[in-house]
Amino acid sequence: MTFLPSYVNGAWWAPESDPDGAIVRDASTGEEITRVSTKGLDLAGAVAYARETGQRSLGALTFHQRAMVLKNLAIALNDRREELYALSERSGSTRRDSLSDIDGGIGVLFTYSSKARRELPAGKVVLDGPIEPLSKDGSFLGRHVYTRLPGVAVQINAFNFPMWGALEKFAPAFLAGLPTIVKPATPTAHIAEAWVRMIVETGLLPEGSLQLVSGSVPGLFDLLDLGDTVGFTGSASTAERLRAQAKPGVRFTSETDSINASILGPDAGPGTPEFDAYTKQLLVELTTKAGQKCTAIRRAIVPSGMTDAVAEALRAKIAERVVVGDPRAEGVTMGPVVSVEQRDEVLRQVRRLTDAGGRFVVGSAEAPDGVPAEGAFLQPMLLSFADAATPAVNDIEAFGPVASIVEYADVAEAAAIVARGGGSLVTSVATHDPDVATELLTRMGAMNGRVLFLDRDDARTSTGHGAPVPHLVHGGPGRAGGGEELGGIRSVLHHMQRTAIQGSPRMLTALTGVWHPGADTDSAGTHPFRKSLSDLRIGDAVESAEREVTLDDIEVFARFTGDTFYAHMDEESAAANPFFPGRVAHGYLLVSWAAGLFVDPAPGPVLANSGLENLRFVTPVSPGDRIRVALTAKQITPRETDEYGEVRWDAVIRNQDDEIVAQYDVLTLVAKTWAPAGAPVAESAVQPAGALA
Amino acid sequence: MTFLPSYVNGAWWAPESDPDGAIVRDASTGEEITRVSTKGLDLAGAVAYARETGQRSLGALTFHQRAMVLKNLAIALNDRREELYALSERSGSTRRDSLSDIDGGIGVLFTYSSKARRELPAGKVVLDGPIEPLSKDGSFLGRHVYTRLPGVAVQINAFNFPMWGALEKFAPAFLAGLPTIVKPATPTAHIAEAWVRMIVETGLLPEGSLQLVSGSVPGLFDLLDLGDTVGFTGSASTAERLRAQAKPGVRFTSETDSINASILGPDAGPGTPEFDAYTKQLLVELTTKAGQKCTAIRRAIVPSGMTDAVAEALRAKIAERVVVGDPRAEGVTMGPVVSVEQRDEVLRQVRRLTDAGGRFVVGSAEAPDGVPAEGAFLQPMLLSFADAATPAVNDIEAFGPVASIVEYADVAEAAAIVARGGGSLVTSVATHDPDVATELLTRMGAMNGRVLFLDRDDARTSTGHGAPVPHLVHGGPGRAGGGEELGGIRSVLHHMQRTAIQGSPRMLTALTGVWHPGADTDSAGTHPFRKSLSDLRIGDAVESAEREVTLDDIEVFARFTGDTFYAHMDEESAAANPFFPGRVAHGYLLVSWAAGLFVDPAPGPVLANSGLENLRFVTPVSPGDRIRVALTAKQITPRETDEYGEVRWDAVIRNQDDEIVAQYDVLTLVAKTWAPAGAPVAESAVQPAGALA
Repeated sequence: MTFLPSYVNGAWWAPESDPDGAIVRDASTGEEITRVSTKGLDLAGAVAYARETGQRSLGALTFHQRAMVLKNLAIALNDRREELYALSERSGSTRRDSLSDIDGGIGVLFTYSSKARRELPAGKVVLDGPIEPLSKDGSFLGRHVYTRLPGVAVQINAFNFPMWGALEKFAPAFLAGLPTIVKPATPTAHIAEAWVRMIVETGLLPEGSLQLVSGSVPGLFDLLDLGDTVGFTGSASTAERLRAQAKPGVRFTSETDSINASILGPDAGPGTPEFDAYTKQLLVELTTKAGQKCTAIRRAIVPSGMTDAVAEALRAKIAERVVVGDPRAEGVTMGPVVSVEQRDEVLRQVRRLTDAGGRFVVGSAEAPDGVPAEGAFLQPMLLSFADAATPAVNDIEAFGPVASIVEYADVAEAAAIVARGGGSLVTSVATHDPDVATELLTRMGAMNGRVLFLDRDDARTSTGHGAPVPHLVHGGPGRAGGGEELGGIRSVLHHMQRTAIQGSPRMLTALTGVWHPGADTDSAGTHPFRKSLSDLRIGDAVESAEREVTLDDIEVFARFTGDTFYAHMDEESAAANPFFPGRVAHGYLLVSWAAGLFVDPAPGPVLANSGLENLRFVTPVSPGDRIRVALTAKQITPRETDEYGEVRWDAVIRNQDDEIVAQYDVLTLVAKTWAPAGAPVAESAVQPAGALA
Repeated sequence: MTFLPSYVNGAWWAPESDPDGAIVRDASTGEEITRVSTKGLDLAGAVAYARETGQRSLGALTFHQRAMVLKNLAIALNDRREELYALSERSGSTRRDSLSDIDGGIGVLFTYSSKARRELPAGKVVLDGPIEPLSKDGSFLGRHVYTRLPGVAVQINAFNFPMWGALEKFAPAFLAGLPTIVKPATPTAHIAEAWVRMIVETGLLPEGSLQLVSGSVPGLFDLLDLGDTVGFTGSASTAERLRAQAKPGVRFTSETDSINASILGPDAGPGTPEFDAYTKQLLVELTTKAGQKCTAIRRAIVPSGMTDAVAEALRAKIAERVVVGDPRAEGVTMGPVVSVEQRDEVLRQVRRLTDAGGRFVVGSAEAPDGVPAEGAFLQPMLLSFADAATPAVNDIEAFGPVASIVEYADVAEAAAIVARGGGSLVTSVATHDPDVATELLTRMGAMNGRVLFLDRDDARTSTGHGAPVPHLVHGGPGRAGGGEELGGIRSVLHHMQRTAIQGSPRMLTALTGVWHPGADTDSAGTHPFRKSLSDLRIGDAVESAEREVTLDDIEVFARFTGDTFYAHMDEESAAANPFFPGRVAHGYLLVSWAAGLFVDPAPGPVLANSGLENLRFVTPVSPGDRIRVALTAKQITPRETDEYGEVRWDAVIRNQDDEIVAQYDVLTLVAKTWAPAGAPVAESAVQPAGALA
């Protein structure tokens, strides 16, 4: 009798024996795969290990360094996919099913690694929103920052995505600097054990940043407190029970099964590309993972009189494409559900649906033809209800290849039916009519975490009703759990604390590693364009000489660029304009001259001007005015994988009366090290500025 | 016997009689002011009225229109401040105390009105984050939007800020389009009734958007469901009790009393400007509103051996400045607490603190000299504890002019003491040392909703430890309730639902009112610079002719601007640069030429180029390359208070090989209507594009 190991306190652990250990069986054959138990596991030790060792090792890394670890873990897992596919088949997954779990999970790591390096700073604190000036003289500022939570991220997962479901929670927590404890669901715990083992074997994992508890976690919630997070995926009823156990202060988010809907638009009848896209998507959602997805369509909502046409199209597609069986067998396109217990549970819920008036229009509760009795096989089922208001339709989830179909009279009723589900992860809408789409979003947007609009333009490229993507939030209100996962950097921030900070520009600069206007600048020494990333410091600045703008300059620029807009060329019309005293210089002339005033032209570490942001023209410049520019290094972002990084400069153009003419951020790419030809290059480590940053 | 009216279902209502009605008394004299009861009030009717009438009337307005209502309500309240001051004095507030409640409340309306018009779109949907391309060909995109919740925002308020505390919740809910029901605390319900009456009397309030329930709300939580929000301010224990009553799906946020801390830095001993600022702030927090603020300092955390110096400085300031008495009396600087019941409750908690080892170092539990026994008067008290780990210090809140003082050995211990409070609304730190500030923020940021850094640079301009500002979030983790209020537009979004939407560019354009790349453009007709806001539509575009860039152009531009950066002027150095094939055109030359290519120069509705955003240079342009530009109207934002609005244009510069050279947004100001001299101006209504927008 072997038990599946847990990975806690920096080591693999398994109980000696436990007669009550749960048995995991092959979904198709019923054969025993392993047993699962935590009898004697030191859960309190694991939590303490995360809070101490895990916090310390993650706290030593910047966001970008954590991102590089994720990328390398993804590469390592990618190399061992075949082992994972083989395990996944034993849980009833076809190769296509495994794609979303295994490749999907690896994809989340890649996406988060790349998003973190693009969208998060090269430090440890995230700035949120702009500076809020809180005093007239600029000596007191407000700002929001996200800092690290001091605890542990516990994830309690569902059986259907043992890899993706864990990695989509792990990646953002890891980036946020929060150590994770994974608690997989028993029926697929062996798959979680496998990928965790692969990750541990890379040797790349910061100590204590990931632990695995294979089995139940009695008493866990007593160990958690302010600074810890719980991410739960599973049934709505379990979510509410667990949420009540969590102490106030523990962040509990859940993503639960919901009665997701798919609406066939009134314009999308048979013969339209939308009808085909709709029925094809319905087939995919019924059969992928044998319908065991939190996001699967449970309610097909179609125009009055359209049930038969949809059912007929679906039956035809099933006959053509669906073969139920052991995923290891040739030609099989739909596997069993995860266990015979799960199969029986699905059939119980189907019985409740038929008791409530549901009538089979596709499939039946019988086992599919030619499958062994020990396997957890089901056929795709669609149940029609005469009354869309039947409570069972909007409340009962048969977590398998089962959906209901109901009809609506008008778009408002379609939206009302969606809302009766009490909050969904996703609703899809097949329509090519923007008015239908707009009315539906207005009426039911707030009831959904995600809404997908399917039509002839995106049917081929749509990622699908049931597929969360790492870029977009996953989770929904109410019945769907009320949580938000994924959504790019949004979920990293859900694992951090947003805090308003107030102080002087000098102090905010020190705290954030980003220069704030009013803080000290240094324009005395070397021109900052002569400094490589390793020498440059935030606050390094150049203050230019003045340059007078003449009418002749404006005319030369107008002729050269072709920009003869009347505000520059026609005194009378310019003066009639509410913003200008008369002819004024082009904004582009001003920023072009500013560059001429601040650049140091000789070859050096500054490689390129890569862009410009937040430019505002504040005061117009008339002929005879004199402008000057101040350029200050604001933020320094070395790239982990390149020999250069980005420097963001604060640029302010002023006139002879010290009024602000224009302000903006200049973005440049700057080499990490640089020396004039012939001189040796110093081996200096490049550190982001600011202790916290 | 008169009862304080409620404002529900569009009318004022009061019970005929209720022997159990609560009595509200003058805090200084004990005289009866009014009675409060909801016996017989139709609470279910009020909720239904909000959900139907309130939703409909708010749903008809855009964010900017709602913002204009807030501004006009603020103006009306501002004109009637003296009436409110008089009522506020009866609750024990001095004129300075009333400033934060009355003027503070009005200020929130003004700030939210102006922030909404600057930072929210001229529509009904908020876009969140950038477009996420989900297919290679751009035919399937993802995006996040915030849409309106379908329910009601219930606020349950504390007695200490009957006006600010309600308006800071009302303003963001109103902007979000969510009708509000205000339930004030009994001791100051008459002040809430007064400002609600003033607002109702303006006639400006959209029907059903604000209701007032003066008295208790039995059964309220049974009426609330998904789509409704509850904002609670009060004690942590009540918050947890109410939270448990709310159905899953109801958004419950709370802002509770917390054991806020103020740290005297190790560098901030007697004689430093920081020491003076620290003790002055401590005095303000003890005495303002007689210490009845959720944000008040409850724990002074000072370096070892510094208790006596701080206490001495505080005693001196109290002797010099504090006169306790009836706020209507000449010279009084600190009023009573709100009621004798509250006074007795404070003294009970003080007794618990002294029982736990607290020793008075400032003040005592005796009534101040010369105050009437019927009044709820207390003197400022500071209790010193030998052991900073005493649980009572970090757990007991005496909600009056009471604070504890403890000592720390090093900065890490100071942070650990803060954390023992279990989550605070605010911690302030008096230090001029950026390293101290940084270490403290790293160690305790996640335990606070706000951290204020006080030093010689901002002591005069600081808005103060205890003062939430509308621009920054108010609320904190754990014991502080775990909620977030204010924070500018952040709290508007907390009253809406974030939903990921997926679809084709055409569909996302229709749903958001913002043009998405790949959606249709119209460049066939009139040049869009010839269209006023009322004629312009998103998707209106201009596609320019090509223009060749020569080496001579680059040299002319370099000489004219002074920008002789080597990448433009030195073939060898440019070619050695990792990004350039050789000499390339200036980025500023390209955007200047683009303007020359897309402008229509004659006088017209386009008034000015006000700025430019998100410019990225993608492909370098070499001599001999030809560029062209496409400019497409992306977003149209008429201003409520001006005869013009902003148009955001999508600009893409491409080369002769169709590669993207640069992309950016151009911002222009465009007149709402315009006609050539002599032609009549059409009286057309300007509507934002897109039904939802």
